[in-house]
Amino acid sequence: MCKYVIGVDYGTDSVRSVVVNASTGAELGAAVFPYPRWKKGYFCDPNTNQFRQHPLDYIEGLESSICEALDNAGEEVASQVVGIAVDTTGSTPVAVDQSGTPLALLYPHLENPNAMFVLWKDHTAIKEAEEINTLSNQWHIDYTQYVGGIYSSEWFWAKILHVIRIDPHVRSDAYSWVEHCDWIPFLLTGGTDVSKMYRSRCAAGHKAMWHSDFGGLPSNEFLATIDPLLDGLRDRLYRDTFTSDVPVGSLSLDWAKRLGLSTDVVVSVGAFDAHMGAVGGQIEPYYLSKVMGTSTCDMLVAPADTFGDILVKGICGQVDGSVIPGMIGLEAGQSAFGDVYAWFRQLLAWPLEQILGANAEIDEDTRTKLVAQTKDQILVKLSTDAGEIDPLESGIVAMDWLNGRRTPDANQALKGALIGLNLSSDAPKIFRALVEATCFGARKIVDRFQDEGVPIRGIIGLGGVAQKSPFTMQILADVLDRPIKIARSEQTCALGAAMFAATAAGLYNDVMEAMQAMGPGFDVTYRPKADQVEKYHQIYARYEQLATLVEQTEQSS
Amino acid sequence: MCKYVIGVDYGTDSVRSVVVNASTGAELGAAVFPYPRWKKGYFCDPNTNQFRQHPLDYIEGLESSICEALDNAGEEVASQVVGIAVDTTGSTPVAVDQSGTPLALLYPHLENPNAMFVLWKDHTAIKEAEEINTLSNQWHIDYTQYVGGIYSSEWFWAKILHVIRIDPHVRSDAYSWVEHCDWIPFLLTGGTDVSKMYRSRCAAGHKAMWHSDFGGLPSNEFLATIDPLLDGLRDRLYRDTFTSDVPVGSLSLDWAKRLGLSTDVVVSVGAFDAHMGAVGGQIEPYYLSKVMGTSTCDMLVAPADTFGDILVKGICGQVDGSVIPGMIGLEAGQSAFGDVYAWFRQLLAWPLEQILGANAEIDEDTRTKLVAQTKDQILVKLSTDAGEIDPLESGIVAMDWLNGRRTPDANQALKGALIGLNLSSDAPKIFRALVEATCFGARKIVDRFQDEGVPIRGIIGLGGVAQKSPFTMQILADVLDRPIKIARSEQTCALGAAMFAATAAGLYNDVMEAMQAMGPGFDVTYRPKADQVEKYHQIYARYEQLATLVEQTEQSS
Repeated sequence: MCKYVIGVDYGTDSVRSVVVNASTGAELGAAVFPYPRWKKGYFCDPNTNQFRQHPLDYIEGLESSICEALDNAGEEVASQVVGIAVDTTGSTPVAVDQSGTPLALLYPHLENPNAMFVLWKDHTAIKEAEEINTLSNQWHIDYTQYVGGIYSSEWFWAKILHVIRIDPHVRSDAYSWVEHCDWIPFLLTGGTDVSKMYRSRCAAGHKAMWHSDFGGLPSNEFLATIDPLLDGLRDRLYRDTFTSDVPVGSLSLDWAKRLGLSTDVVVSVGAFDAHMGAVGGQIEPYYLSKVMGTSTCDMLVAPADTFGDILVKGICGQVDGSVIPGMIGLEAGQSAFGDVYAWFRQLLAWPLEQILGANAEIDEDTRTKLVAQTKDQILVKLSTDAGEIDPLESGIVAMDWLNGRRTPDANQALKGALIGLNLSSDAPKIFRALVEATCFGARKIVDRFQDEGVPIRGIIGLGGVAQKSPFTMQILADVLDRPIKIARSEQTCALGAAMFAATAAGLYNDVMEAMQAMGPGFDVTYRPKADQVEKYHQIYARYEQLATLVEQTEQSS
Repeated sequence: MCKYVIGVDYGTDSVRSVVVNASTGAELGAAVFPYPRWKKGYFCDPNTNQFRQHPLDYIEGLESSICEALDNAGEEVASQVVGIAVDTTGSTPVAVDQSGTPLALLYPHLENPNAMFVLWKDHTAIKEAEEINTLSNQWHIDYTQYVGGIYSSEWFWAKILHVIRIDPHVRSDAYSWVEHCDWIPFLLTGGTDVSKMYRSRCAAGHKAMWHSDFGGLPSNEFLATIDPLLDGLRDRLYRDTFTSDVPVGSLSLDWAKRLGLSTDVVVSVGAFDAHMGAVGGQIEPYYLSKVMGTSTCDMLVAPADTFGDILVKGICGQVDGSVIPGMIGLEAGQSAFGDVYAWFRQLLAWPLEQILGANAEIDEDTRTKLVAQTKDQILVKLSTDAGEIDPLESGIVAMDWLNGRRTPDANQALKGALIGLNLSSDAPKIFRALVEATCFGARKIVDRFQDEGVPIRGIIGLGGVAQKSPFTMQILADVLDRPIKIARSEQTCALGAAMFAATAAGLYNDVMEAMQAMGPGFDVTYRPKADQVEKYHQIYARYEQLATLVEQTEQSS
């Protein structure tokens, strides 16, 4: 009799659940649930880069997407589900009370953005991140040494400090803080005491400066020196952390009912999407597994016993077991990748939405349809047209920092740029320059790993852009001068979660075994073209020069 | 009995003729003729900035626009026309044979772009301009001293040298070279010997380094040192130059017939559009008269007897009599102004034209109409929306050099740029930054005049952008921190030509008198707003910083 597992992948805009055959990895059913409040733009302010998500979006999405995926998987499947694992974006912390309930679920915080999950791409805590970095540089222990030497405004402590500084109500009602990936397993297993919540090694190590060398989180003395408002919080957080092959417990009666599953279903420790995605995409030692979506997360694993004492500067961190237990998981990434292309599409769609969409001469249904049809084709047609442009033709060089820079060397204050524009700079030329810039940003990361003594033996491409844009992938192969293997599955994050679910449920000895049995294999491989490689070598020099200049202007502004 | 004069204004895309009452300046009839070959993009290559115009476009436009303007003016008018004057863009030189006929009118050059007029905005001669500058810096006479110290690729000698270098056929068949504004009066008066052609003081002084101090054009020794290909050409060009109050002659029998006019009609010496436009816009001493269209031409006049020996660096030149006889005419300008906005409109129109325009689900008439309607509204809607954005809100700073930089300090190799982009940078924000950049470019020119000891007592706005964009004019007033008077007439160039025609025909003692009698007066005045002035002071500092950086990256690329 077959056994099934469920992988739940919380992305930026929606949550996706997949029901998978635990022996083969074959997908039986899947469902996506877009967050309804998020979709309406609630609780966000793009002008100040405030991005918050309501816990109800997550709860509704959990129930809906799992139930629908099970429906799609067919009868008989639900009764044979043995495990569920969850991945989420991160760092996405929320303030909770002593029972582990996010404050936004409790009166009077129901509509208070500061009582909601602070999404990874929220950049309201730039100042707090700077203060953490300043103190770290002077402290006798460098708590940033395992997170690349720079603490980011996208991370746990900076976000907590920002929120409790500006919101006295959240400050007084927050007993503790939890990551999204820790809260969902806690919710599913009916947790009622936050001190017993299983905390993800991945989230803690990459975002909260947790490390066994430090005896856990940074000392209370360090935290209270950053700001007395943090004094005492450490004791209300956690000391131990867990890898995702560890079971948290089994489904609560309530959730078993809601999902139509048994209370025997094992729920395992959560982790971040890219980390589980790397597993779903069959990462190997010293392969860079790039999840390329709105942003990128670049994961690399190296056996812990031979890695030595290398500390890679300017990345998002290196954590024992964050991807695969027993291996150092190294994380890097770009703050905007597909988001750069989406930004340009949105820019070009302005006349469609603002003028054509308001043209009273045509009926509303027709214009809505025309706007949507045309907008849908923008990136397709841009890719086709830009594909015919020689890299050296336009002279346009872009900077990909439209959402700041995550790595190498986090700096969320940086901005995007376009130089070399002239009157013949049309949309395909600019688009090509933007795509090239995102690929140059990717090269910066590869170069950094290698410069710091971590060899890169291969590149694996995962995520929406890897799957959907051969145009981008070919440029990436040319810029990196390396072949890029594209994972066959489109849902590597959810599939990776399913592999952990199967392992935690006891079907495999470890996740490596699960990966081998359930892995989807690879689809196309993009190979670098020698003539383009040579051209991009030249343009990359211009990109690096521009990067230096743009960084200078930001610093002096 | 009333007397009438005709002003003919050759612009970049079309020629416009106006029939004017010579006593009052009242416009009786006007007509515009778009150049048919140019409109189809013939002989041009925007990728290499090659822009050529066929002499037939000019000839057909001359006849058609004058005849139609006379028709519109009503019966009885043609018989009382006493003068015609012509202004053109420039420097717009063409190779001619000994009879003064442009080579493109002669077999085998009929379709050879190098035998056509090289339009002002053609930037194919960047290398040649550099060579001229290099030699000028070392020569015992600085021939560039009256053209701002930098010779531009948009000008006479650079363009000639470029064409004769790359095209041996034109090289061997070109007896001499003439400016568009010299050729039209020559054509109208039936000239047959290029050595007798009246050459415009304005064109010669601003673009060909002609100056009475040099005894005319630069020496043959200098020219032959730039390139032996130029050896001997000086003697086949000209020694004397003339201001536009001077009659060239009267209409030839042929042209009198073609236009339905008398052979008594006086044709006066031509000049450049912005110079005649400044007269049509009633320029005063030490007022900056800004013709703001696709690019800008900024004219200033100062009485020759009190101007002293000031040499303004980095402008397009200072020439005795180029605008008004007896006054030094100083010219500066920006290579792209309205063209920057048009570029952005074209960029945003890409999905309309490329996707919606090809949508086979809707009939062709409907989609053509929708594309045109929507595109027409882009700049209107952008201006409205951008008008509501605080200057300090977006953080975007643009460089306006999308067509290179004309002044201060000509450098056609420079490019445009946008920095400070983030994921919330939408079309109105970027548009506002682009408009601000063009206004900052305008401030650079005002600052240069003042820094060099030439006071600016007022600003007069002329041209399409001045007439049609209150949004841009208000930002310009705020950036310059000065009021801007907008000339009442939309056709100040043609009107200025008509004033010269009336003067050359003997109706006035000098053009100052004509200006007073025929001047249209002023329309609205835009006044700076104190709060905006303060904000733009800050942003201008960022613009200057960016300018330095962009110039550095160009130099090192």
